[in-house]
Amino acid sequence: MKNVICKKIYLELRTPGNGDFVADIDRILQALKPEYGEVQISIETIKLSYKLLRDFDWKLTVTLVHKGFAWEIVNLERGNTSDKNFAYAADLGSTTVIMQLIDLNTGNILCEESRVNHQVRFGDDILSRIFYVKDNDAHLRELQQCTLLNFIELMEKIQTATGISSDKCGIFIIGGNTTMIHFLLGIDPWFIFFTPYTPAFNRSGFFVGREIGLPFNGLVYCFPSVANYLGGDIISGLLASEMYAQSELALYMDIGTNGEMLLGNNEFLISAAGAAGPALEGGISKQGMRAKAGAVDSVQIVQNQLKITTIDNAKPVGICGSGIVDLLAEMLLEGWIDYSGRFIPGRSERILMRDGEYVIVYAWEYESASNEDLVFSQTDILRFMDTKAAANTMVAFLLDAVGITPDKIQRVYMAGAFGTYINIESGITIGLYPDLPRERFVQLGNGSIKGACKLLENADQLLVVEDLISNIAYLSLAEAPDFLNKMSAANFLPHTDFSLYPTVIEKIRSRKHLERSSR
Amino acid sequence: MKNVICKKIYLELRTPGNGDFVADIDRILQALKPEYGEVQISIETIKLSYKLLRDFDWKLTVTLVHKGFAWEIVNLERGNTSDKNFAYAADLGSTTVIMQLIDLNTGNILCEESRVNHQVRFGDDILSRIFYVKDNDAHLRELQQCTLLNFIELMEKIQTATGISSDKCGIFIIGGNTTMIHFLLGIDPWFIFFTPYTPAFNRSGFFVGREIGLPFNGLVYCFPSVANYLGGDIISGLLASEMYAQSELALYMDIGTNGEMLLGNNEFLISAAGAAGPALEGGISKQGMRAKAGAVDSVQIVQNQLKITTIDNAKPVGICGSGIVDLLAEMLLEGWIDYSGRFIPGRSERILMRDGEYVIVYAWEYESASNEDLVFSQTDILRFMDTKAAANTMVAFLLDAVGITPDKIQRVYMAGAFGTYINIESGITIGLYPDLPRERFVQLGNGSIKGACKLLENADQLLVVEDLISNIAYLSLAEAPDFLNKMSAANFLPHTDFSLYPTVIEKIRSRKHLERSSR
Repeated sequence: MKNVICKKIYLELRTPGNGDFVADIDRILQALKPEYGEVQISIETIKLSYKLLRDFDWKLTVTLVHKGFAWEIVNLERGNTSDKNFAYAADLGSTTVIMQLIDLNTGNILCEESRVNHQVRFGDDILSRIFYVKDNDAHLRELQQCTLLNFIELMEKIQTATGISSDKCGIFIIGGNTTMIHFLLGIDPWFIFFTPYTPAFNRSGFFVGREIGLPFNGLVYCFPSVANYLGGDIISGLLASEMYAQSELALYMDIGTNGEMLLGNNEFLISAAGAAGPALEGGISKQGMRAKAGAVDSVQIVQNQLKITTIDNAKPVGICGSGIVDLLAEMLLEGWIDYSGRFIPGRSERILMRDGEYVIVYAWEYESASNEDLVFSQTDILRFMDTKAAANTMVAFLLDAVGITPDKIQRVYMAGAFGTYINIESGITIGLYPDLPRERFVQLGNGSIKGACKLLENADQLLVVEDLISNIAYLSLAEAPDFLNKMSAANFLPHTDFSLYPTVIEKIRSRKHLERSSR
Repeated sequence: MKNVICKKIYLELRTPGNGDFVADIDRILQALKPEYGEVQISIETIKLSYKLLRDFDWKLTVTLVHKGFAWEIVNLERGNTSDKNFAYAADLGSTTVIMQLIDLNTGNILCEESRVNHQVRFGDDILSRIFYVKDNDAHLRELQQCTLLNFIELMEKIQTATGISSDKCGIFIIGGNTTMIHFLLGIDPWFIFFTPYTPAFNRSGFFVGREIGLPFNGLVYCFPSVANYLGGDIISGLLASEMYAQSELALYMDIGTNGEMLLGNNEFLISAAGAAGPALEGGISKQGMRAKAGAVDSVQIVQNQLKITTIDNAKPVGICGSGIVDLLAEMLLEGWIDYSGRFIPGRSERILMRDGEYVIVYAWEYESASNEDLVFSQTDILRFMDTKAAANTMVAFLLDAVGITPDKIQRVYMAGAFGTYINIESGITIGLYPDLPRERFVQLGNGSIKGACKLLENADQLLVVEDLISNIAYLSLAEAPDFLNKMSAANFLPHTDFSLYPTVIEKIRSRKHLERSSR
């Protein structure tokens, strides 16, 4: 990897003496200058280094990080350690924090560790956390400490797994949404969610880890955000997708707690984003859950029989996003629910009245881990449909803004955990995704951390990032006069406008045909 | 002042809302961008600022400092305070620390305060301090704290005198010799004075005051050094002299604890420097003293009668540098001492034998504050001559290096306290300065602090500084094979080579003539 953002350079410096009066640090700077220009060095590093150089007998390895406008020396080590060049990449999610250790000499991911964000102690949803810190500096510091603790623990886990400690890493790149980066830096994110919906900052640039209380002497870089709901995690994901560099028109969808959508190519990029609600993370129903052991993650209805699978094949305890999407898609195709998402009683013995509303029992009590029926209710369905309508409408809004019909989308990148695990066919069936040839869909996985790795591998991507955040047009949904109309049109399965979903309509018809012929 | 290094810009920012989602900080950055490009801002300043902007109702004054490659925001204030733009400049001398408060809107020096460097607690001479910190981190920190304390106290004095506190200043520029800047940053200067005579660093760049423990949130800039004995104070002085920009050949002399000499013009600059010893600060004789009340600061011999003046017209307590130079010059001209600096007994009743050697009594006991004779001994004279010979030889060495005779020097800049107060005629008489037409001599005053002011007034001088430290040729005196020969030739008054001092020889002759005719 040639253009890597963090380099380790072995230097054998001239030993001072015999009229060679060059200052210690200048020996290093002069050795680096031909290739790296005017290299920067902090006072702290100067202080650490002046004792080390003689100790190292003038043979040392310098760790350099490219800050965009210059390289900075972040570490000095005895002898030649250039074969050991490591970095961290992280996705600071509001629910899950994922951290990787990357070998910059090979580009290999040596280790990935993750944990539930310590912030959830202050609320599963971001709003609770924001309310917690409002006008309270001590609480704000608590949230920052929680955020830092995630990384501190993950660094320890990585060290336990690989033997590689944080002082062997020169750079740490973080993708996170705008609120998460505010919490990381100890800055109140209130106005991100409340009028006038402005972040305090979008760019934090490069800073030393210990500047924010992280026990890390290398440099930290947080992907900059574009706006309140369009965070650095999406910018990072754009790097991963490379759609900004292609001529084909692409759609980038990240649906999670928030929904973030981008449409464009190498000529333009427009975006819309908004709170999609916790629906898609399984938070909408009583038994909705994150994707972990025992979560129903896929549903099929074959010959009117409901079949489920669970994560780790554990006894079912609830249903996660991909399970919900499957469940709704299959029920729609089988005619258990109608286009408006309402149960059609009598179509299955699993459709029952509970607590005054219809529910579908997706696991009977004898099958479930809790020994009670696991159900998804009419209310759950309608709330989920709100979320899917919001996502669908954001895409429609972007298409309208550039006057393009959905079929012109040549590529759809689905980012985030939800985008990774959801069944594309089911997503299209319920109208969450546009009805396009299936080969146009790309599951990007965790775009945030993948983009961080891309940046590690190629410092030139810093220029791409700057270019992106300057040039992405961020459309305000609040400014769209017909947004609510569009959204209520989308509040059907798959949509009130059937012409937008020809293959889904065809599938429904063919299933009905099968149904009739099997009777 | 147009190109000032620290600017205050009043901004009335758009209030967010109505679809204007620009981040708080980005409002500032966008407002500054047309004129100031990509402005930098530290995490700390972001943290401070996000609360202030609303509090200031989006009307604020930004303090910007030019770091050479970019501007950085260092402060935000409510309303329009652009009429109040202040900065500090300091000369961090090993004996005396001088600090000025500058009004950057007018260039006026609003206040100057000074104090004896707290470091003298660990020794009047630099070497004692260097020995004190050797291999002892606690002692090194003590020296750093002492150094910081100078500035902390001077900031307080300035505030008392002017009402202007340190948080009203955006930038603090410091000129100091290489050792002083090492102490300031808490870095062991051992190898500056001991083989291989290398500083740990030459450049510290711009850093935030609190990074080194200074209660100052603005940026600090220390003039970079060129070598162990050629410090940032001299680079600053060069700015003040402007000799680097002139076609005339100039000599820059700063004689103090060390001697630093530069020769050149807008085409070349060569330098030599070395420990001149404490002689010229009056430290050579038992009664030698710094220039303060009661120090004999000028001496004349009229009709064989010695006449002295003292600082503040106080009763004499000792003799300072300018007094010593006058004393030697006058005794030489009057024939009280010979060309080798030895007393000629009988030429004056003031030449007496004390403790086994001849002395000159420059104040009788009844005149002195201590009620004892104040004397300057044969040993004192010879030690002083060593120092003057060292200074003279450095200049000869530079002239030789470029093959130029002294008479080609068109301008002599005399910097430092010694250069400011010494009588030029006397300095030439004893051979400390070259024998040139007197109008070629310029007393620069404190070049170090004057250069700091120049840089404050014009940020472009940062480029000049970079250019200077890259291009000054630093000649090693140790490498000069005939240095000791030259020095012993200079160990006469004014010099063994009379042809170098025609006007002095003429003066001696004419005084002898007067003497003869008055007898």
